[in-house]
Amino acid sequence: MLTQTIDDLPTPALIVDRAILDRNLERMSERMRHAGVMLRPHVKTAKSIEVARKAVVGHDGRITVSTLAEARYFAQGGFKDILYGVGIVPSKLAAVSELRRLGINLRVVTDNLPVAQAIAAAARGGDTFSVLIEIDSGAGRAGLPWPEVPGLLDIARVLHDAPGVELAGVMTHAGHSYHQSTPDDIAAVAAQERQAVVGAAEKLEAAGLPCPIVSAGSTPTAVHSRDLSGITEMRPGVYVFNDLDQQLIGSCGAGDLALSVLASVIGHYPHRNQLLVDAGALALSKDISAQEFRREVGYGTIVEPPAKDMAVVDCSQEHGFVGAAEPIPFGNLPIGARLRILPNHACITAAGYDRYYVVDSALDGGRSVVDVWDRINGW
Amino acid sequence: MLTQTIDDLPTPALIVDRAILDRNLERMSERMRHAGVMLRPHVKTAKSIEVARKAVVGHDGRITVSTLAEARYFAQGGFKDILYGVGIVPSKLAAVSELRRLGINLRVVTDNLPVAQAIAAAARGGDTFSVLIEIDSGAGRAGLPWPEVPGLLDIARVLHDAPGVELAGVMTHAGHSYHQSTPDDIAAVAAQERQAVVGAAEKLEAAGLPCPIVSAGSTPTAVHSRDLSGITEMRPGVYVFNDLDQQLIGSCGAGDLALSVLASVIGHYPHRNQLLVDAGALALSKDISAQEFRREVGYGTIVEPPAKDMAVVDCSQEHGFVGAAEPIPFGNLPIGARLRILPNHACITAAGYDRYYVVDSALDGGRSVVDVWDRINGW
Repeated sequence: MLTQTIDDLPTPALIVDRAILDRNLERMSERMRHAGVMLRPHVKTAKSIEVARKAVVGHDGRITVSTLAEARYFAQGGFKDILYGVGIVPSKLAAVSELRRLGINLRVVTDNLPVAQAIAAAARGGDTFSVLIEIDSGAGRAGLPWPEVPGLLDIARVLHDAPGVELAGVMTHAGHSYHQSTPDDIAAVAAQERQAVVGAAEKLEAAGLPCPIVSAGSTPTAVHSRDLSGITEMRPGVYVFNDLDQQLIGSCGAGDLALSVLASVIGHYPHRNQLLVDAGALALSKDISAQEFRREVGYGTIVEPPAKDMAVVDCSQEHGFVGAAEPIPFGNLPIGARLRILPNHACITAAGYDRYYVVDSALDGGRSVVDVWDRINGW
Repeated sequence: MLTQTIDDLPTPALIVDRAILDRNLERMSERMRHAGVMLRPHVKTAKSIEVARKAVVGHDGRITVSTLAEARYFAQGGFKDILYGVGIVPSKLAAVSELRRLGINLRVVTDNLPVAQAIAAAARGGDTFSVLIEIDSGAGRAGLPWPEVPGLLDIARVLHDAPGVELAGVMTHAGHSYHQSTPDDIAAVAAQERQAVVGAAEKLEAAGLPCPIVSAGSTPTAVHSRDLSGITEMRPGVYVFNDLDQQLIGSCGAGDLALSVLASVIGHYPHRNQLLVDAGALALSKDISAQEFRREVGYGTIVEPPAKDMAVVDCSQEHGFVGAAEPIPFGNLPIGARLRILPNHACITAAGYDRYYVVDSALDGGRSVVDVWDRINGW
């Protein structure tokens, strides 16, 4: 394995540059330590024990997951404090209890009174739960909308009064930070995020209710926030790899993208100045988020070999159509030549794969495969 | 297992209605038999042994695959004549030979002279190959563009003259049929597809070269073609399940969609007339193909419970945002209620899952889970 290079890999393959990954992890960890905030990385991006273990260095090991499959996988990997960040439904409480009985503090989230009542009822059977109340700080996804937070105290009291249930705090995710494109605009969203979740915590405390955890975070707001006071933990996710979308909104620089898809040239079409590669919709995903800011990124841009404005302009299931503004140097890219493609949205692209091939650009330009890491998919 | 109902399933889950599937399979099989054309279904949609076994009933068992992982999986499942329909690269020939040595006639495709030469060279080591030449009948993806077909005879001669290499024929895929919206327009594409691939076959035969296989097909052209003379086999794929895209272009009716995603309601947001469900970008895919014809389909429409114009209007990784033109009946859809969502593009949606839960609407309205079928993902 140690002598394998990326030229030996079957394509398409998912490549992680460890040097960039480590730098991304260190930077976020330091930023949070400097702010006095605990990092609870959202491991839904890499879904990898190895990446998560590196991500929590310097913090206390808490993580966020997006599925029960992730919760089980990371619990097996030794993680003990896990926040399941997608609104819980009563039918999933049994699976939550199963992990909690093994000593995993799997915490759940709700914004709904009947669900809080169902959790209280489930705890009467002897199970314990730890629950955070979700606040909508402006993203318009889940959560009680700030500043009204309708029903906040009712939900909180049901949870707090139920034996076996811990009212663990409040959480929010400022997903609208993904649609800003300047540090100032992101900082404004971060201020909104802080105001909503800290404000909700203050409402609980004013009512005599506990709120030990005040949880916020997205990669853009974690990077550009100017004030995290009152927040106890941040939950950025995609910063571990970054991607074209994060680059274009300014969460990272062009050299901070750790994830790429390795593909082979499978066809030459000079009459339309296109190549085909064996990375299509399943290998890249059909996520076009970064096109919001730069249409030319298509389904991913070519980073290796260095190519000006070469991108996957279209894709079908297993075919990627590579186009360019200038004539493609077909002679330098024979059939079988390998390209590395930067994805629009790392979380979605990575979900097509069951493993990462790890290279290290600081070691030998990223040619040798230095490790293979698995990841968990599905639910 | 036989007493399990869809209410017992964890969500999100992928549901196949066997009654609809069987009807779709029977209709296509009959259509091809009536036309005197062999069916070589493209199994990249379901990627399931069970579905493929049903699909080839009444035909000779030949199939098409889109990845080497599929080739291996279907070879293990007993399939012997497998066309790998994505342009081959020399580095993948060793994997092809591995299956061929086990008695699997895994055929490959190219449109490139250096690749043909590489195949000829590989065969000098004692391996055998069966190769089809790809023709571009107007889709603008892979293949030698018709009518010029530049280099067709050169490629054909290299293959035909190489000991151990079978020049097996020509193939095309009229992918542009997916962007038509009337039976007449699709029939016109089908005529183009036939003309190109039969024309290429005639060029080979006129040059004294063999061309036993003349292979065409997409679901829309297989459904709406009016003349298949000269074509020996058709390779439709998505017809097994159909989806919103196929419905909107007229390849099937509204009652012919066999695949759906089962999701749970996880949040109520009456202030914006939205529900959240636990099926987001990974459970539905970010494929928006059907939006080309009807924007309101979003990332999938709600089919169960019956709801007028209710659709997943947006999604993040694990959250689907369900909106509707009319006020949502929140009281009938409490947290935990289950919805079934019809996907835009079955092939891409199914790729997020490792299994199908099979129901049968002809049996009990589709409530009982009558079987579980696995599928192969990755490469």
